[in-house]
Amino acid sequence: MIKKYFHPELMGYDGTQLASLWAYRTFQIMGDSIVAFRGPCKVGLRTMVDLEDVLKGDTIYSPEMLHFIVEHFDMDLEKTVLRQRLFMTIIKEDLEEVYSSSLIRSGDDLYLIDKKLSVSIATRTPVSTMIHVGLNVQTEGTPVPTASLSQLGEKNPEAFARRVMEQYVAESTDIYLARCKVRGVN
Amino acid sequence: MIKKYFHPELMGYDGTQLASLWAYRTFQIMGDSIVAFRGPCKVGLRTMVDLEDVLKGDTIYSPEMLHFIVEHFDMDLEKTVLRQRLFMTIIKEDLEEVYSSSLIRSGDDLYLIDKKLSVSIATRTPVSTMIHVGLNVQTEGTPVPTASLSQLGEKNPEAFARRVMEQYVAESTDIYLARCKVRGVN
Amino acid sequence: MIKKYFHPELMGYDGTQLASLWAYRTFQIMGDSIVAFRGPCKVGLRTMVDLEDVLKGDTIYSPEMLHFIVEHFDMDLEKTVLRQRLFMTIIKEDLEEVYSSSLIRSGDDLYLIDKKLSVSIATRTPVSTMIHVGLNVQTEGTPVPTASLSQLGEKNPEAFARRVMEQYVAESTDIYLARCKVRGVN
Amino acid sequence: MIKKYFHPELMGYDGTQLASLWAYRTFQIMGDSIVAFRGPCKVGLRTMVDLEDVLKGDTIYSPEMLHFIVEHFDMDLEKTVLRQRLFMTIIKEDLEEVYSSSLIRSGDDLYLIDKKLSVSIATRTPVSTMIHVGLNVQTEGTPVPTASLSQLGEKNPEAFARRVMEQYVAESTDIYLARCKVRGVN
Amino acid sequence: MIKKYFHPELMGYDGTQLASLWAYRTFQIMGDSIVAFRGPCKVGLRTMVDLEDVLKGDTIYSPEMLHFIVEHFDMDLEKTVLRQRLFMTIIKEDLEEVYSSSLIRSGDDLYLIDKKLSVSIATRTPVSTMIHVGLNVQTEGTPVPTASLSQLGEKNPEAFARRVMEQYVAESTDIYLARCKVRGVN
Amino acid sequence: MIKKYFHPELMGYDGTQLASLWAYRTFQIMGDSIVAFRGPCKVGLRTMVDLEDVLKGDTIYSPEMLHFIVEHFDMDLEKTVLRQRLFMTIIKEDLEEVYSSSLIRSGDDLYLIDKKLSVSIATRTPVSTMIHVGLNVQTEGTPVPTASLSQLGEKNPEAFARRVMEQYVAESTDIYLARCKVRGVN
Repeated sequence: MIKKYFHPELMGYDGTQLASLWAYRTFQIMGDSIVAFRGPCKVGLRTMVDLEDVLKGDTIYSPEMLHFIVEHFDMDLEKTVLRQRLFMTIIKEDLEEVYSSSLIRSGDDLYLIDKKLSVSIATRTPVSTMIHVGLNVQTEGTPVPTASLSQLGEKNPEAFARRVMEQYVAESTDIYLARCKVRGVN
Repeated sequence: MIKKYFHPELMGYDGTQLASLWAYRTFQIMGDSIVAFRGPCKVGLRTMVDLEDVLKGDTIYSPEMLHFIVEHFDMDLEKTVLRQRLFMTIIKEDLEEVYSSSLIRSGDDLYLIDKKLSVSIATRTPVSTMIHVGLNVQTEGTPVPTASLSQLGEKNPEAFARRVMEQYVAESTDIYLARCKVRGVN
Repeated sequence: MIKKYFHPELMGYDGTQLASLWAYRTFQIMGDSIVAFRGPCKVGLRTMVDLEDVLKGDTIYSPEMLHFIVEHFDMDLEKTVLRQRLFMTIIKEDLEEVYSSSLIRSGDDLYLIDKKLSVSIATRTPVSTMIHVGLNVQTEGTPVPTASLSQLGEKNPEAFARRVMEQYVAESTDIYLARCKVRGVN
Repeated sequence: MIKKYFHPELMGYDGTQLASLWAYRTFQIMGDSIVAFRGPCKVGLRTMVDLEDVLKGDTIYSPEMLHFIVEHFDMDLEKTVLRQRLFMTIIKEDLEEVYSSSLIRSGDDLYLIDKKLSVSIATRTPVSTMIHVGLNVQTEGTPVPTASLSQLGEKNPEAFARRVMEQYVAESTDIYLARCKVRGVN
Repeated sequence: MIKKYFHPELMGYDGTQLASLWAYRTFQIMGDSIVAFRGPCKVGLRTMVDLEDVLKGDTIYSPEMLHFIVEHFDMDLEKTVLRQRLFMTIIKEDLEEVYSSSLIRSGDDLYLIDKKLSVSIATRTPVSTMIHVGLNVQTEGTPVPTASLSQLGEKNPEAFARRVMEQYVAESTDIYLARCKVRGVN
Repeated sequence: MIKKYFHPELMGYDGTQLASLWAYRTFQIMGDSIVAFRGPCKVGLRTMVDLEDVLKGDTIYSPEMLHFIVEHFDMDLEKTVLRQRLFMTIIKEDLEEVYSSSLIRSGDDLYLIDKKLSVSIATRTPVSTMIHVGLNVQTEGTPVPTASLSQLGEKNPEAFARRVMEQYVAESTDIYLARCKVRGVN
């Protein structure tokens, strides 16, 4: 069972949070987890894990994002990329269902027409795999055209965070059980 | 690279197609593949791999479905269930984008309000993992209330099948590359 | 979380219970599980999975055993053999603590001096790995010298089964968490 | 085959020994291994790998321990935690059999009533998984109430070390073979 | 350590030997093994595991071959195909070194100019992966142009079998150790 | 599909190139790859990954080598050692076929009688496994007796590099497909 936690205080994200056992060291949450919090986002080239961004010289900035940090104690990074896409889908489906927003998912990115709502990355630590997702709450000063949750109708990031974390935990359990109710074939 | 193929002739699906190397034995397609074809669907209790359906005594019937059979030569069934959910998402996103249809995804099922568009299962063979997805083309006589592709606006199942197979192959490649462009963290 | 269940009715064990999804098909228990029940045990050469016994022509018989059937949806058979040894240790430790019994564990077997208390095997199905453990409740007619739970002081097999299942579930969770609280080293 | 070695000279343990290829770099022992030696134990917060201890501010100290360092070139940390529990069981069973000591195993810890005999941890390196086990030989100045091997009757730590290493190697081989003598089931 | 055995009596190979625990059931050899024997080879479509041959309607026949049956209790079939190629290389290198024969290796096949010396396949059982290699000792009546060991200068199939089995075991051990003597890099 | 690239400019190899995503960071080649280039080779004890060399105090030097750097986004180091041996075999077979050279392969080393043609190592990064192979183009000042490609008849290292990279990519694909065309057995 994946543990979920919404941290009510503002906290900045600068890339150093994407490190093994961050949820345990910070919040004493042991095991697979998804944690959400709000705060500014500023990732420079030194802490960037996506080398595609490093090669382009792209950095990440947002005055305020809703952040999610996921840790799975499973070492298969491709599988965690699949989980990341599932989580982006859950975010998109929630916004569509609740606000009739029409988002475009392009891989692990979400767009409102041509404005970017999200940043996301998945990587591997010595003992786990991890995902970071950031959704803009405010958009002033972002280096590319961006959309925010409130432009999509979501004025309550905490409630939204709780819903999508709930759904991620439920669907992850459901996926495991889907694998436990079929017989093998020849 | 996953191979894709649309088989132009009608072919029934009765569950026996969910068997290792089916694409190779039937169409000489070797390696990971996604194959689509149209035809009736009738799966009885004996060939049902979902034991939840078997316990309920549910059988599957549709006068005509668009079928997809996917085979990955990767033995991790939970990972293939994640791929299955991704494929359902791709189907949903295509129908939304092209026809502005408003589908609900519930796990590996797609619904138009309360009418079921799809059946789907993922399982394991001695040498691979496999997915079957069936989308109703016609709905007469189905055991539960169902929706069809044409009710959603899609009158050309073949063109639709080619688009979603194309997208599945592209996104699968993209997922693999996403895992190849990040450095590890501590 | 592993599910646990004590089935209150007598049920024979003949080896055919060691089959994937047995707990789901029989008791609607989905996912990793440990199930216990009482009943006679008679395994002939045809359903024997231990080929060492088959080569020796050994069969298994007991007029009444306390049976445990464990299923893990993890495909690593060596790991499941390690879990089996852990479960035998838990059984031994419970009997020692509660009844000051002095058992000898030899691999996956438990002995009271030179009398065999248990039979056990671990194997692989197309979708899972499984363990069977049988502990003698009665010993008349067994093909080798045997000891029974009641000779060790345990007159209440159900209470005993509930304790060791509880302990197996708790320790399995603890082992997973032990893996989730350490940083990697160089 | 796991190699075993008792190092006859005193050597301190401070946590830095829990590093990949330590047995190879120190004793030219290549491959899976278990090495034992005697010496003081002092692990500070910087070299502690158990973050539960770090969070509590617990450090480890003993004037003299019998140390075991195990390395498996298998990357599955949960499996190595299972091996660690098996090794603790082997230690307990040896002391019980030889000295009729009555130890309590609680996870990866051994107690004589409420006195702690052991410290233990398992973690992952970039190329292997490793276990450290320390058993008190002397107990003066330990931060928690502790028991020593000699209090349990064992006056010869070297002979004891050789016996439990022998048993660990033998049982590990036996576990592998247990996985090699069963047929699969359905 | 892989066990090796040369069986001195003639035995036919018809494909049914490629089954889990064959070496254990037939020769009481437990664990990873390589077994060699001489005898006719006749594999019909029903026992053929290579579906490429089945699709072409190819069957296998040789009046006498030197057979090798390898079993690894490792479930990764691609890895076992790599081991199979290594074994073909060892066979080629032995014949080159001892008899200055000039063989061509094409995947898992060995040719003397355009005459086929070998048949080979690797597959998966429920508990292991397996390799069969057959080298012609006599060539009368083979369905394709074939070469024999004696045409390559090797008049003593048993001595040859013992040499290449010895080399396969030694190189497999060496490969494992090669993995145990390197530190990880960033 | 493994990407291949011959870099036409001289570049030194000092061991730091054996690092994850080197081909991506240096040449924007994303995914599994094999890259070749020419240049001097000098690896000191600090960047040496083979601890056997470190223990012996051996360093590596050659005035000019043809270098290959391979990266597989697969974490199984033993499998990558198998791939490394296959690549050495491909190199040997090309030189034999084209120049009738008679090389001896000893593990991952190639010799012309007692002169060493190659250096090679395989290791693991946080996100991949990697291979380095260096073949002497010039031999002045090497610490052990060495042979060069030109002594073997190969005057065109670039053409040679392109041929063996082509063959490595083709055989790797073939190995994957060999695993995709067999049915499982019992």
